[in-house]
Amino acid sequence: MSRLPPVEHLQLQQEGWRLHVTLNRPYVRNAMSFAMVEELMAVFDAVRTRRDIRALILRGAGGNFCAGGDIKDMAAARAAEVGPDGRDPLAASNRLFGAMLSEANALPQALIVIVEGVALGGGFGLTCVSDLAIAHQDAIFRLPETGLGVPPAQIAPFIVQRLGLTQARRLAVTGGAITAAQARALGIVHELCTDNAAIDELLERSLDQIHRCAPEALALTKRLMLAAQAVDFEPLLDRGAHDFAAAIRGPEGVEGTLAFMQKRPPKWVEGQG
Amino acid sequence: MSRLPPVEHLQLQQEGWRLHVTLNRPYVRNAMSFAMVEELMAVFDAVRTRRDIRALILRGAGGNFCAGGDIKDMAAARAAEVGPDGRDPLAASNRLFGAMLSEANALPQALIVIVEGVALGGGFGLTCVSDLAIAHQDAIFRLPETGLGVPPAQIAPFIVQRLGLTQARRLAVTGGAITAAQARALGIVHELCTDNAAIDELLERSLDQIHRCAPEALALTKRLMLAAQAVDFEPLLDRGAHDFAAAIRGPEGVEGTLAFMQKRPPKWVEGQG
Amino acid sequence: MSRLPPVEHLQLQQEGWRLHVTLNRPYVRNAMSFAMVEELMAVFDAVRTRRDIRALILRGAGGNFCAGGDIKDMAAARAAEVGPDGRDPLAASNRLFGAMLSEANALPQALIVIVEGVALGGGFGLTCVSDLAIAHQDAIFRLPETGLGVPPAQIAPFIVQRLGLTQARRLAVTGGAITAAQARALGIVHELCTDNAAIDELLERSLDQIHRCAPEALALTKRLMLAAQAVDFEPLLDRGAHDFAAAIRGPEGVEGTLAFMQKRPPKWVEGQG
Repeated sequence: MSRLPPVEHLQLQQEGWRLHVTLNRPYVRNAMSFAMVEELMAVFDAVRTRRDIRALILRGAGGNFCAGGDIKDMAAARAAEVGPDGRDPLAASNRLFGAMLSEANALPQALIVIVEGVALGGGFGLTCVSDLAIAHQDAIFRLPETGLGVPPAQIAPFIVQRLGLTQARRLAVTGGAITAAQARALGIVHELCTDNAAIDELLERSLDQIHRCAPEALALTKRLMLAAQAVDFEPLLDRGAHDFAAAIRGPEGVEGTLAFMQKRPPKWVEGQG
Repeated sequence: MSRLPPVEHLQLQQEGWRLHVTLNRPYVRNAMSFAMVEELMAVFDAVRTRRDIRALILRGAGGNFCAGGDIKDMAAARAAEVGPDGRDPLAASNRLFGAMLSEANALPQALIVIVEGVALGGGFGLTCVSDLAIAHQDAIFRLPETGLGVPPAQIAPFIVQRLGLTQARRLAVTGGAITAAQARALGIVHELCTDNAAIDELLERSLDQIHRCAPEALALTKRLMLAAQAVDFEPLLDRGAHDFAAAIRGPEGVEGTLAFMQKRPPKWVEGQG
Repeated sequence: MSRLPPVEHLQLQQEGWRLHVTLNRPYVRNAMSFAMVEELMAVFDAVRTRRDIRALILRGAGGNFCAGGDIKDMAAARAAEVGPDGRDPLAASNRLFGAMLSEANALPQALIVIVEGVALGGGFGLTCVSDLAIAHQDAIFRLPETGLGVPPAQIAPFIVQRLGLTQARRLAVTGGAITAAQARALGIVHELCTDNAAIDELLERSLDQIHRCAPEALALTKRLMLAAQAVDFEPLLDRGAHDFAAAIRGPEGVEGTLAFMQKRPPKWVEGQG
């Protein structure tokens, strides 16, 4: 039986067959550093073959779910040069997010996501791969990427899988900022709650339902359902990582980052053409 | 022109271009025995090339739509041994349900399903392959499989096709019990009615609309739409049948069946870990 | 930089980064002649590589969006004979609609469709490939094809892509006539407006959101999202064109057209079988 890995940026708490996983960098609204992404993947790897753990409950510390990718790590990845073997560390680090989302998407256990505060970029993506997503009614969802000059390359396929193309397209072109009520209407989350007590109560009820399902039968059912979608995301995510790296190094990415740091609108927003 | 087959577990009534097909084992809430599944397939085979029959109306006798697979037949299939040629009668009998659902899904005629009372397991699946599903507001939908230690192997792909992955996943992990209103919100059924008179009226109106469509043009349109989904379910269903057979013979399937017969919760529900 | 093409059946108006494209045959409710389809494709070709144009706003002149394919052009195509090389001009002209919809679907810019009055056949299809569709609350959507004895061959895949199979099937068998409110509930359009002032205001707000997205990042995001659907529509549309040509020349197509001209119901609607 695989043991849970040591973690620094997460908090893990096992209560019998339930594993509570808390993104634990509240001072940056739980923005996902590469180290946090790797810890999440280590947790997913450890539980994958364990049927004694039957549900993962993923949430953020300090009242926010997740503010997306960590800016500092991004900046460092950007400074890194393409190696003599052609390996691009920027594409590789971007690809890591997609690998983590793919693993979360394919977990044999029930994956419950609780969204309070913000769910931006990768936090939006994590919500889209859950089996059950419960949001506080004041939660806010956003895809800030295109406003910064880059595509949400590792997240976009999972958003289409979650919402369908119709609603995903609209989000893509309009910048993807939505309220919890809109997220519920689009199926990003399944249920809204007015306060934490209501979240806890709904969570308990849902865990009770999960507990009645035989764990291996549930794992088989999830695998069958995922297979019925049939689109192989891996080549898409590979290409997306290279698109992302090219975009962040290109004129839009450079201008987007600069404008963000200088707290001004990027050039493409200026004037009306 | 193919003639309608003789039937014992169904009731067939042809009214001009309409064929009423009634699941007729009301004493077991129209649970589908293998014989009934084979009769349904014989009906689908007979009408496939007939353009004089333009709509099939499928419902259950005695106030229920369908309680899923027949327990007795399941038990018998389970007792059967794998043949010297490696053919597994249990996987084969499970696969039969998927074959029937695939045929219903691909019928060139309009397929209308009327749901009253319960739609469990395979009855849930049949609803998911209809062109138009009308439910009584008190109808109940459920996937009891995982609670019995087995996956809904032949049904899961059609549920994903019907609901999308997002809602299908939630159903999978929480045991899939929903009300008619929830089924309407998820698109499992298209319309709810408060009583039988309302069902009849909506049915007549819908048949009238179907009657205005040229039958061959309608068949071509249905084929094109199905092709636009592009996922080949057959290998999924093949694999699902083997997963099912392994699950029902495995510890969860054995315990699930025993617990069901002994009217007690299965072991995996005991305690809180 | 590609220049916008000369047009006769469209009206083009560029306002900085916005390109207004108006279907301009109001005397036939903007029915799409082959010439208009070719002009639309020339516009899409011209803007594809231009990032200075960031949004296309597509609407119809004179209070209607689009009444579908032009009857006169259809009749002429029908009279044309299959060439000695086996090329079928009827299939080819039908295929042109699908090619245009595929191009619209894959535009790197944001594509906004405004629907007033009717959106029939190809007009319905154009709505289904937009990133954002805004409808007047009195707009009407319909797929008249099967009532005329032919399948909506070039449109059906895009409808499934937009609505999902469940709702697409129901539309297919019931003739596909729906109100603006139903179109909103099904996701054909994203928003309804009570009057033109409300449409203008929502359009401005949406353009403002689009303007904040970096144009190349938006193009990459749209491409990734489309790729996440993974179904290759081209072979489907090829086959659909041949199905269409065969249907329009077959007994249903001949009867459907004759009945339409004689303003009587086609034979398949007569009697109750």
